[in-house]
Amino acid sequence: MMSEPDLDPGLHEPMPDAAVESPESESLDQDNRLKPEFVRAVKDAIDEDDGARVYALCEKLHPADIADLFELLDEDERPRMARAISDLMGVEVIAELNDWVREALVEALPADVVADIAEQLDTDDAVAMIEDLDHDEQQAVLAELDPEDRAAIEAALSYPEETAGRLMSREFVAVHETMTVGDLIDFLREHRELPTEFWEVFIVDPMHRPIGTCALSWILRTPRNIPLHDVMVRDQTLIPATMDQEEIALRFQKYALISAAVVDEAGRLIGQITVDDIVHIIQEEASEDILRLSGAGDGDINEPILMTVRTRLSWLVVNLGTAILASSVVGLFQGAIAKFALLAVLMPIVSGMGGNAGTQTLAVVVRALATNQLTDSNTWRMIFRELRIAMANGFALGALIGGGTWLLFSNPLLGAVIGTAMVVNNLTAGLAGILVPVTLDRFRVDPAVSSAVFVTTATDTMGFFSFLGLAVLTGLA
Amino acid sequence: MMSEPDLDPGLHEPMPDAAVESPESESLDQDNRLKPEFVRAVKDAIDEDDGARVYALCEKLHPADIADLFELLDEDERPRMARAISDLMGVEVIAELNDWVREALVEALPADVVADIAEQLDTDDAVAMIEDLDHDEQQAVLAELDPEDRAAIEAALSYPEETAGRLMSREFVAVHETMTVGDLIDFLREHRELPTEFWEVFIVDPMHRPIGTCALSWILRTPRNIPLHDVMVRDQTLIPATMDQEEIALRFQKYALISAAVVDEAGRLIGQITVDDIVHIIQEEASEDILRLSGAGDGDINEPILMTVRTRLSWLVVNLGTAILASSVVGLFQGAIAKFALLAVLMPIVSGMGGNAGTQTLAVVVRALATNQLTDSNTWRMIFRELRIAMANGFALGALIGGGTWLLFSNPLLGAVIGTAMVVNNLTAGLAGILVPVTLDRFRVDPAVSSAVFVTTATDTMGFFSFLGLAVLTGLA
Repeated sequence: MMSEPDLDPGLHEPMPDAAVESPESESLDQDNRLKPEFVRAVKDAIDEDDGARVYALCEKLHPADIADLFELLDEDERPRMARAISDLMGVEVIAELNDWVREALVEALPADVVADIAEQLDTDDAVAMIEDLDHDEQQAVLAELDPEDRAAIEAALSYPEETAGRLMSREFVAVHETMTVGDLIDFLREHRELPTEFWEVFIVDPMHRPIGTCALSWILRTPRNIPLHDVMVRDQTLIPATMDQEEIALRFQKYALISAAVVDEAGRLIGQITVDDIVHIIQEEASEDILRLSGAGDGDINEPILMTVRTRLSWLVVNLGTAILASSVVGLFQGAIAKFALLAVLMPIVSGMGGNAGTQTLAVVVRALATNQLTDSNTWRMIFRELRIAMANGFALGALIGGGTWLLFSNPLLGAVIGTAMVVNNLTAGLAGILVPVTLDRFRVDPAVSSAVFVTTATDTMGFFSFLGLAVLTGLA
Repeated sequence: MMSEPDLDPGLHEPMPDAAVESPESESLDQDNRLKPEFVRAVKDAIDEDDGARVYALCEKLHPADIADLFELLDEDERPRMARAISDLMGVEVIAELNDWVREALVEALPADVVADIAEQLDTDDAVAMIEDLDHDEQQAVLAELDPEDRAAIEAALSYPEETAGRLMSREFVAVHETMTVGDLIDFLREHRELPTEFWEVFIVDPMHRPIGTCALSWILRTPRNIPLHDVMVRDQTLIPATMDQEEIALRFQKYALISAAVVDEAGRLIGQITVDDIVHIIQEEASEDILRLSGAGDGDINEPILMTVRTRLSWLVVNLGTAILASSVVGLFQGAIAKFALLAVLMPIVSGMGGNAGTQTLAVVVRALATNQLTDSNTWRMIFRELRIAMANGFALGALIGGGTWLLFSNPLLGAVIGTAMVVNNLTAGLAGILVPVTLDRFRVDPAVSSAVFVTTATDTMGFFSFLGLAVLTGLA
């Protein structure tokens, strides 16, 4: 480990304390969220059509907070706020907006205004802004762009959604390895049109294929006369333009990347992806897993309500099908229930507990698959692991509920039946919880999307069947 | 937008193609995961105690892949592999290992070896390596460290787990604003002991409080004679040393940070956090939400099995309590069920569908809370939103199951009863799905941890109660 370098002692005018504090503390709470009273004040000003006051309130906000503010307003207030603060509506605000909120706002703006904003944005943010527009609106915006930007955006749109080609920025610094550190610094100082923020310089061969990278910290610390091929790192992670964003995020994580070169089929450098985009993608992909596992699709709280209803309802209808299937198992034992209604009282415990245990396993397995921790190499070990956990939990819960039932209803046979059914259903849950997602993953189906339906079907039907079946078999009813 | 700069035309010897390709393709599959046959070969070599072969196989792997390989091996194979490749076991491997796997491996190593590794690591990685050791082992390792490193690690350990003080690296570059760009570059070139990777330079006042930052790309592009106070950005996000990692991750995302200054209570710069650590934290926090929502605690597939059983079982026992509560509601209607057993067949449909709808709402709300999208300012709007969705879904599903029941059993009253119960339980689900997590969040309890239990209890009991109650009320049984 190294200690912090000594400070340069030649120091004059100290800065006032105020510079250290964040200027936004009047609008932000301790968790860095906009204060409700601040949002209230903005809403009131919008309602009173007091544009000047809206502007005064928002003027000092960070663009990311302006974006948050938009999301917190009611839908009809958003375009009114946008008009009031039009010259604060910079590119950072647009880039930070939630997809749904941006889409609605962008649709409300005329094509030439959208084009103006797009020209100020990096390609990746410009693409994000217009990719969700419908075809006609997209064409209208593209027509307003200058030819070079239009070409860049059209090229990006030619790649499938959520791939590197869409996400990459076409602004990067690429030079040849024969340059010296000094040449590079001069080159950077002379070319004002270079990207404002970059963290690595890419080194390319004459065919424009990446052969190495140089972190800026290395360049800064190397004497001017050293050629880049002596300082560059040759071992780099290349991202094919067609790679899916989830895969890209995994590579950034695995290799702790700050930026990475995107290459076309011929291996030529065509763009870069930087870690700040990846941070959003990781958040997005992890949220997707939670929401899909829960049957809520990809929707967030800003999704138009009709789309939300459609997505959720379609999953609920699928679930209704499986619920009917499970209930038809109960139907087989209607006679037994009529004779001994206590069975109907106890059966939801067995099915429900199986569902809970299955959900636990499923969540762990889906995350392990998503983060590449569970692969073909350790599948069997993990299946045995889940089986052992299911056995342990099943016996513990079976003893608990079996013993309790025996004592409460003074019926040892009923206790034995529910206890055994609990063990059986916990094993079912553990097995289904790992086999379903692993199988779906094998067939390249996202295990987060549909695993829960299969697992719940398994635990519900097996819960009812094992408990009621054993009851009939043992002559309880 | 800007186009990529022109290439320096002065170019000679092209690099061989091989340099472009990743050297690991024989061991990695298309998804960048270790191939099963490769893992098999390593396992075989370990089983045959063929250390040389293990070494030969692993020699060309990236450290992150060696870390992955450890996780894919059986527990008893890991220390044997570590012995075989001891001089490949660099700091990058240790830093990339899963927490559980690292802990087990570190515990198996003697204290002086652990200390040797810790001295090579950045403070944050060294802390991560030894924070999970028990007190005696930790002291033994600390005793082996040189005084400066020991002080740094002890200082980090004095902060609570998962706070900035633990996560920060104490290696950073901090200078005074009076320095010129040229001075800074000379300073960086002269001081070989500076951190190897950094992305921003922090500017501090005489009290060592941060007053601004300079991205390296700005420094590289600015003429030597310009003083730093003319190029530095004064508006920066400061992280107090006691801030929780989830909060830190949200700031990095919100403000698209690459690194940030960590300050003590007096506002003095004491460390930096870089985005590569944040990437892991975002992944970790999002996984935590999925796992906690599903009652699987914080465990991943590498957690020791006894801990997994303990965590999952304790949640299952809590769930058993709520299942018994729900079943006691059914118990109230035992007489009705004995008379009309079809009620027992249909009742799981009502409770189960409520559970599904509740889970959907819960997942959306928990993510919205975790990402600061749902705050006090829009809580009421979101409650109404969920209620409208619940109404829409409830009526659709109620009509479907009510109509189906009517037709199938030629019993319009039974259809009306189950349809109405379905609407009631969907509303219960929607309300509980948002009110439970929002209330827990208000009381600063992590909504991911216990919301599901409350929501399921609500939908189960209300599902049984509304359906069976209406059946009795309408004289069906």
